[in-house]
Amino acid sequence: MLKIGVDAMGGDFAPEAAVKGAVMALDAVGAESRIVLFGDEARIRAVLAGEGCSAERFDIVPTTEVIEMGDHPAKAFQAKADSSITVGFGHLAKGAIHGFASAGSTGAMMVGSMYAVKPIEGVIRPTISSLVPTAAGRPALLLDVGLNVDCKPEVLAQYGLIGSIFAESVLGIASPRVAILNIGEEETKGNAQAKAAHDLLREEKRINFVGNVEGSHIFSGKVADVIVCDGFVGNTVLKMAEGLYRINKALGGGNAFWDAMNYENVGGTPVLGVNAPVVIGHGCSSPLAIKNMILTTERCIRTEVTAKLQRAFNS
Amino acid sequence: MLKIGVDAMGGDFAPEAAVKGAVMALDAVGAESRIVLFGDEARIRAVLAGEGCSAERFDIVPTTEVIEMGDHPAKAFQAKADSSITVGFGHLAKGAIHGFASAGSTGAMMVGSMYAVKPIEGVIRPTISSLVPTAAGRPALLLDVGLNVDCKPEVLAQYGLIGSIFAESVLGIASPRVAILNIGEEETKGNAQAKAAHDLLREEKRINFVGNVEGSHIFSGKVADVIVCDGFVGNTVLKMAEGLYRINKALGGGNAFWDAMNYENVGGTPVLGVNAPVVIGHGCSSPLAIKNMILTTERCIRTEVTAKLQRAFNS
Repeated sequence: MLKIGVDAMGGDFAPEAAVKGAVMALDAVGAESRIVLFGDEARIRAVLAGEGCSAERFDIVPTTEVIEMGDHPAKAFQAKADSSITVGFGHLAKGAIHGFASAGSTGAMMVGSMYAVKPIEGVIRPTISSLVPTAAGRPALLLDVGLNVDCKPEVLAQYGLIGSIFAESVLGIASPRVAILNIGEEETKGNAQAKAAHDLLREEKRINFVGNVEGSHIFSGKVADVIVCDGFVGNTVLKMAEGLYRINKALGGGNAFWDAMNYENVGGTPVLGVNAPVVIGHGCSSPLAIKNMILTTERCIRTEVTAKLQRAFNS
Repeated sequence: MLKIGVDAMGGDFAPEAAVKGAVMALDAVGAESRIVLFGDEARIRAVLAGEGCSAERFDIVPTTEVIEMGDHPAKAFQAKADSSITVGFGHLAKGAIHGFASAGSTGAMMVGSMYAVKPIEGVIRPTISSLVPTAAGRPALLLDVGLNVDCKPEVLAQYGLIGSIFAESVLGIASPRVAILNIGEEETKGNAQAKAAHDLLREEKRINFVGNVEGSHIFSGKVADVIVCDGFVGNTVLKMAEGLYRINKALGGGNAFWDAMNYENVGGTPVLGVNAPVVIGHGCSSPLAIKNMILTTERCIRTEVTAKLQRAFNS
């Protein structure tokens, strides 16, 4: 049995949105998967009853505390020992669940990833990634999207390998094209960081490195399936896309490409390079967003991407 | 008489597009402005004749050479002494024209800006900027957009002042809101560069510094009129916007906001921080793009933004 841990108390609209999203995910997850909800049992059962969904279809791990958005992540992770996030990570670290997803405190989720689950040996700096839609239809993976804002070239080069393994394993893209985000196509272009990382990525024989990708082709799908950049640039790219999505929607524009930009369909941000699948959802997650976050977590578990990453960095 | 120098040989479709764009600009420039065309006189006259436009309406400075896109910018600027760009910068440096615009070799335009016109005393590194449309209606100024990809915080801080003076003078925005592009609203956010630049910008009393702006608000117009970033990030933002514009257009989407994203309407990229107005157009400029590039140049001349910048850095 594959156990997907979900923080029922995470997100601005928890537990309602989190539990409703879990109900929506029930039919989409595999028959051998089971969703484990962490949180206030009475409130979880109340939402399930309201949805007409039997509580028997879930495992529930009762917790009494919640790490709030205003809490100091590291302190709260320790002090609120019976919080849904702390208990969830405890279960993840001991293997009682196989992945953990939350739309709650991003900081606390990172604390759990780094100190409970821990980085994979050999990974300099874990990363958070995001799927972006492309005009070619299939999504591209962008990483880092905000965790590491000052990246050494060696860190960026590792992101190429991490992203390649994730794209092949979880997204099912054979020999994914890996590129580094840069300001020109020529390999002599870029800032000092990008040029040095380009040289390191070219030497990485385990990936299909295709060179530089410019901003104009992040969303075209023509150049790359995996796009490596530092967290400052990646976060800006992601937020800019969200901003344009909102403007476009407000102006009445819309089509399948822009719909795919909607974070609700993206399904959370996997933390990559730690010893278990961890997926962080948007704070304002709707039930649909929670559902997709859960499905992303399931795919990470099912495809054993963590084991593949561990082997890549320990061989 | 205000003299606007235009490279008739610059751009992928020169001289046709350049000269046609100059004809389109004729009615839009002020009565006291005159457009000075640099290039192959016979070809310029042929295009003007084809347009049914009297050559008397322009000054023509005949040149016999062209700096090609494949040429080494610095070497070609020297070796092709009778090229339209080299001769144009000669006129600009001696004051025979008051601004110079070209859709030709960006590299040669930068060589001319740095070595013929020269940086303004006190400016550490000149910059290239771009107008971006906003949902609020009026454009915002983004700088740097590709010239300086490794920026010290002191350079970014100067861009805040340069951009503020440009926005107030040329765009007519009173007390423009200046922000630094960053990954969060809080002043403690960002990479080392952004945090240090934030501190310097806060101390700059001559600007209306409003703090950080996130990627989501570059195009909203809600936070800033002038957005400061390094050339790596700025170039990525600009190219990403262009890429999304093309995708949106290909998918049949379109509205006033996206139309404004079209580079043809933007009117070139001013080089700021040098001792004369220099505007660089897109290589694939259409006549409409050339027309708007010329109008941008005229606004820079008319509003005496160069003198304002010189005073700001020499006081």
